[in-house]
Order: sequence, then C-alpha cells, then structure tokens
Amino acid sequence: MTLADIAALDASDPLAFTRARFRLPEGVIYLDGNSLGALPASTPGRIAEVVEREWGQDLIGSWNSAGWMDLPYKIGGRIAALVGADKDEVVAGDSTSVCLYKLAAAATTLRPERRVVLSEPGNFPTNLYVLQGLCAERGLDLRVEPPETIAEALTDEVALLALTHAHYKSGRLHDMAALTAKAHAVGALALWDLCHSAGAMPVDLNGAGADFAVGCGYKYLNGGPGAPGYMMAAKRYQAVARQPLTGWIGHAAPFDFQDDYAPGKGMKRMLTGTPAVLGLVALEEGLKTFEGVDMAEVRAKSMRLSEVFLGEVERRLPGVFALACSREAAARGSQVSLSHPEGYAIMQALIAAGVVGDFRAPDVLRFGFTPLYLRYADAVEAAARVQQVMESGVWRQPRFSQRQAVT
Amino acid sequence: MTLADIAALDASDPLAFTRARFRLPEGVIYLDGNSLGALPASTPGRIAEVVEREWGQDLIGSWNSAGWMDLPYKIGGRIAALVGADKDEVVAGDSTSVCLYKLAAAATTLRPERRVVLSEPGNFPTNLYVLQGLCAERGLDLRVEPPETIAEALTDEVALLALTHAHYKSGRLHDMAALTAKAHAVGALALWDLCHSAGAMPVDLNGAGADFAVGCGYKYLNGGPGAPGYMMAAKRYQAVARQPLTGWIGHAAPFDFQDDYAPGKGMKRMLTGTPAVLGLVALEEGLKTFEGVDMAEVRAKSMRLSEVFLGEVERRLPGVFALACSREAAARGSQVSLSHPEGYAIMQALIAAGVVGDFRAPDVLRFGFTPLYLRYADAVEAAARVQQVMESGVWRQPRFSQRQAVT
Repeated sequence: MTLADIAALDASDPLAFTRARFRLPEGVIYLDGNSLGALPASTPGRIAEVVEREWGQDLIGSWNSAGWMDLPYKIGGRIAALVGADKDEVVAGDSTSVCLYKLAAAATTLRPERRVVLSEPGNFPTNLYVLQGLCAERGLDLRVEPPETIAEALTDEVALLALTHAHYKSGRLHDMAALTAKAHAVGALALWDLCHSAGAMPVDLNGAGADFAVGCGYKYLNGGPGAPGYMMAAKRYQAVARQPLTGWIGHAAPFDFQDDYAPGKGMKRMLTGTPAVLGLVALEEGLKTFEGVDMAEVRAKSMRLSEVFLGEVERRLPGVFALACSREAAARGSQVSLSHPEGYAIMQALIAAGVVGDFRAPDVLRFGFTPLYLRYADAVEAAARVQQVMESGVWRQPRFSQRQAVT
Repeated sequence: MTLADIAALDASDPLAFTRARFRLPEGVIYLDGNSLGALPASTPGRIAEVVEREWGQDLIGSWNSAGWMDLPYKIGGRIAALVGADKDEVVAGDSTSVCLYKLAAAATTLRPERRVVLSEPGNFPTNLYVLQGLCAERGLDLRVEPPETIAEALTDEVALLALTHAHYKSGRLHDMAALTAKAHAVGALALWDLCHSAGAMPVDLNGAGADFAVGCGYKYLNGGPGAPGYMMAAKRYQAVARQPLTGWIGHAAPFDFQDDYAPGKGMKRMLTGTPAVLGLVALEEGLKTFEGVDMAEVRAKSMRLSEVFLGEVERRLPGVFALACSREAAARGSQVSLSHPEGYAIMQALIAAGVVGDFRAPDVLRFGFTPLYLRYADAVEAAARVQQVMESGVWRQPRFSQRQAVT
C-alpha cells in the first residue's frame, strides 16, 4: 500500500470520530489496548466528580442518590449491548477470575450428575487455574483438549465447556455458535470468556445460544487498570442458577439484615460484596466510548489495521519473525502475534522506540489493534519502527533483556 | 459537661491534627464513618495522578513502573500495622465477602476431619451468608450461638470459629484473645472480621493468637465506597493454607503462563484476579490518614466522644430512646446505638438536620464516632440536633418515613 492509500483509508474511516474520546500520550503508538485500554478523555473528570462530590460531599447518601447501588446493573446493560445479551443478563463486579469461579460453579451445579469440565491447554492461565480450583473443590475432572479435537471431546460426561472466545496469545477465534450447539447436543453447558473479543468485534451470545459468559473491563472496554469484570447468565438459568459466594449484595433483600441467605432475582444472585464504586465508575466511562459505534465497523477496521501492520512487517522484514497467529484476519481476534527467540528484548526495544505491545512467554510479541483510537497511519508507522529496531540491532543492548513482570 | 469542658477537651485533643487530613462537608456532623469513611484530603489529587499520569501516560508500563502489582502487599503492610499483624501477613484485594469466603475455605481445609463452623446469630448478614454458601459447598454444618454461650459451644467438632470483633449494630466487642484461646484449646481455628474495629481501636491479632482475619477498607480505613477488603493469615498457616479461588495473581509465577496452578508463597496464594488499581490506590490514601497516629489515643478519644454524645442525649431526652448498645464505652466499638420504634423516620429527619448516622432494621439508630475527624464539640452539637428533631416533631413528616435502601 502506498502512503496515499493509507491516507485515504484514514480519511474515509467511519470510526475516525472516536479517537477524540481518548487521551493518548504523544509520540506513542499504543498496540496494547488488548491488555490495558487507553484512558478515555471523560474519565478523569467523572472520577473527580465521584470522588469529590459524590463521596466527599454527599457521603453515605450517594449509595442511593448517586445510584452507586445500581452500578453493577447499569454497567452490565452497557456491556450486554456489546456482547449480544439482554440488558438484564449481565452484571459487572469482582475480578474476572472471581466471576469465572462463580459462573463455572453455577453451571456445574446445574449438571450435578456430570463430572467433567472441558477446556483447552494453553487457555489463559487464570481460566485453567480457576477451573482447577473449582474442580478440586467439587471432585470434578478438568479435561483439556486442543482446539482441533475439542468438539469430539464433548461427550455426555461433560457438565461444562469453558473456553475463551479469542485466544490471548494467538488471537485464534473459536466458533462460539458451533461449539455451543455441540455442547448442547450432548447435554453440556457452555461458558465463554470474552476478555479478548468483547469490544473488539461483534459478539452474539444469545445468537450463539451461550449459557454463561465472563469478561474483563480493562482491555477493549477501557475501564482502567484492574477494572471490574462481568458475568452473563442466559435468562433461562437465572432463576435456577446458584453460585457459592453468597454475599449480602446478592441477597433478595440485603437491607432487611436477615440471618438466612435468600438469592436475589435475576442476575442479583451472582453478586457478592459491596460494589467497588471507583472501579465501576471508570468502567462505565470506558463503555461510553462505544456510544454510537457499530461493532461491525469495529471488526472491519480491526481486521484491516492488523492486515496493514502484518503486511508491512512481512514486506519490510521478510523471514525475520515467525507467525504466531493465523494469517487470516477473520480467524483471529484484534491482534497480530509474531514469534522470535529474542522476543522479550525486541519488545522492550520497541517500547523504548514508542511502539507499545507486549511479550508473552516464551517468545511471542503481541500487537493489539484497537479500532476506536488507532489510525491506519499508526499501523504503518509501527511497522516502520519495528524495522528500525530490528535493523539497528538496538534490541541486543543488555538493558532490553533484563526481565520484569508485565501483565 | 459545660461548654468550657468541651472546649478544653478539644483544645487538648492529641488527635486534633488529623482533622485537616479530611475534606468534610460544611454544616454536616458526619457520624457514619463506620459505614463510609470521609474523603481524605489527599485522595482526589492522588487518584487524578494515577488516572492521568500512571494510566493515561504510562499505560501498561505502570504495572511495574508505578508499582501497581505490589499494591496488595504494600497496602496490606499498612493495614497490618493497625491490626497487630506482621506486614507480610496481610494483603488487600477483593470485596470483604470474597475475602471471607477464601479464608474460611482455607481454614476449614486445615481441619478436614471437623464438620462444624461456629458463628453467632445476628452477625453482619454477609458473614452468615458467606459461611452458609461455603458450608453448603463443603457439606459442613454452620452453627450459630449467642455471645453468652458461644464459648461453651466450642467443642472438638468445631473446625472454625468465625466472629465479628465489634458487632455492626450494637458495637458489642468480643474478647478476641479469650475466645481464640478457647478455640485453640479444642483444636479449632479462629477467624475474626475486623470491619467495625480496625482503625477505631487497637487490634492485636498476633497478641490474641488469631489465625485468620478479614476486614473492609471503606469504613474506618477511609478507602472510599466499595474499597477493597483485606485478608490476614498468621504466618504459621501461610505455607499450608489453600483457598479455592486460585486465580493467576495468586500463582507462584503468574507471568510464566503455565497451565498448572502452583500457589505463590506467603499471602500471595490468597490473591485471585488482577489487582483493582483505582480502589487500591484510594485505600492506600485512606490509610495514610493514620500516619503518626497512636491507636490507644484513637480508642481513648472514641470512647470519650461516644460517652459525651450519649450523656448529652440522655440528659436532654430522658427516656426517649432505648439503649441498643452497652452503656459502658469499653464494651462497645466506636459507636452508640439507640432504638426507637420510629427509628427510620427519625434518622431521615436527623440527616436532613445535618447529623448523618444510619438506620439498621428494625429500629436502631446508629451513630459512629471517628476520632480522626470528629471533635468533642461535634458530639455535643449532634446531641443538640437530636433534641431539636425530637422536640419539634419534624420527623413525623411523611417525607421522612419513605424507605430507601441504604448501606
């Protein structure tokens, strides 16, 4: 593509208007919105208002007057619109890992005669860890099967199929509708983790017949570091699903202060503790960046951004990286993953050069493409900087190989 | 007491200096810091810095450069100093209810041959609800015994004694050291909920031999609405305790992205999901209000404040309220609880008159005394306003009896 082609793509981008909804640091091309979304422009002011007026001035009264008690539902409704659920099928709150524990527990309780939970090896670690914890607790058997054979592993022993829609490292997409249908055909339930798909592409939970879903608030939803996660339970299970973390906010009447737990109606019973107001409010602002946005356009731009970047990297640096994702944009989430034995040091050098992606052990460089704030020109410039870093050999400097934990 | 006596108390108050650490609304006497602590003066600026610079400018890099990953431990260390634990015995994160689930699960796992969890009727509801959820999950038996007979109910069937140190409604204090010793004498473990005591009085978990403890961040610790809770596990259990919510942040090496969970060392294994940065940072600021504060002085002032208030109410309004707490300040937490059949409407009228306490069903008016920002003159003025409200009969207006949920 020529520079004129790229300029034309940006000039005709139907999502160009959303870039102004973010504050982006000067000189940085941020390809890590799939790990921590950028700061929405409205968030600092809204957080200041909540802290200074709602908390500072109105104090305890804000639980009612500022609607703090309703935040899990109100935010859940906004998320529902992005993931193809009804607005009363989603609530926000707790970390994604805790949300997963609760819904996986609820799901397996609905299939008490079955002893198997099915997932895949190499799923995002917390998913496997949480399922391991739950299975140990309940005497269930966690089986992992690779994507190629997972459909065949769905037998009538399986209580729950628990998968991540878009793989965190490769971006590989599961066929949610087909696998859910296969799960249902053998009498199993399906729980989808949307961490790497919600907000980056159309997700149609109800269209796919999904039973449960979880996701996180801090990636494409732009909710800020450690934002609350969310839970979706299809309406047909809400009256019968039970989860073990039966805290007071999930009680039918928390302010009656009764001694015995009685689960609230609908998604209320999935809640546990007092809503984390600051995190929820930031998540709400993050979700506002999607107002007036067509998710089909988000997906189209996402695919094209990643295609432009990958095409430029291949053209400029043939044979330097191995591909760690599908070559077909339609088969991966909103990311490009490349592998290189020195991937860690290269990513550190790239970050120093103003291209922020991240490294995933053992050798993957992961570049995320967030259509709400990236331009096609950014994708080209990022590839140019990758070329500069690789050709200059700067990444061989010892300062770039010193490892630190990153999320 | 004369006005001169009160002025003298304020003039010689060794904690007078901490009031400037808070932003308090004009004209309001805030007697609800035991439900939602007031806004620390430093919090708005610190939150803005985290949002605008750490998140907005430094983005994903802040997990390391701004120390976000260490927040659960760093904040845990500050809490430890308030509750008589070592700094590596406390971590912050998750709601109090989730914290309680994790530690009660860990504790009962350490006594696998015992089937009873012991608590008390009328404990704060979420405590009973969470224990009910856990016991149902594990086939355990939750027994509740009133405070008067709970020591006798400690038998060798009991795996865990789970109590709240200061009762949320009456403020009644349990003898933590004596009950923990009794629990240990029968081979049980003791888990203490510090929600209504930490930050209001000296708490000495290690001195009492406590095994586990939880608490919340949004009351006396001034961490803001829905602030993260915290967990304490005595060092002797850290290597052997296991909790079922095994998320990636509790893994020994979360960034190795291994498929199998391996519990982290020390308190790390008690963590689950990605740290909730905004909530944690606000909690850290809240805890800074305790810098240079002697908890013995906090307790002395707390008792005297409540004594002044209660004495004034009794003098001004003899026989109007029944006492719903101990008459002895030393036997209750940092609160005064009064009961009245029309308690709900009276509390609403008091709030309208600028005395913010709260109502606890069915008939309790609860007034909390936070020594870091209340003056003796405030306690007297609050009592004077209670008198005005009662004598004017304003609380009989229908607008005050319309019920709304409050926390």
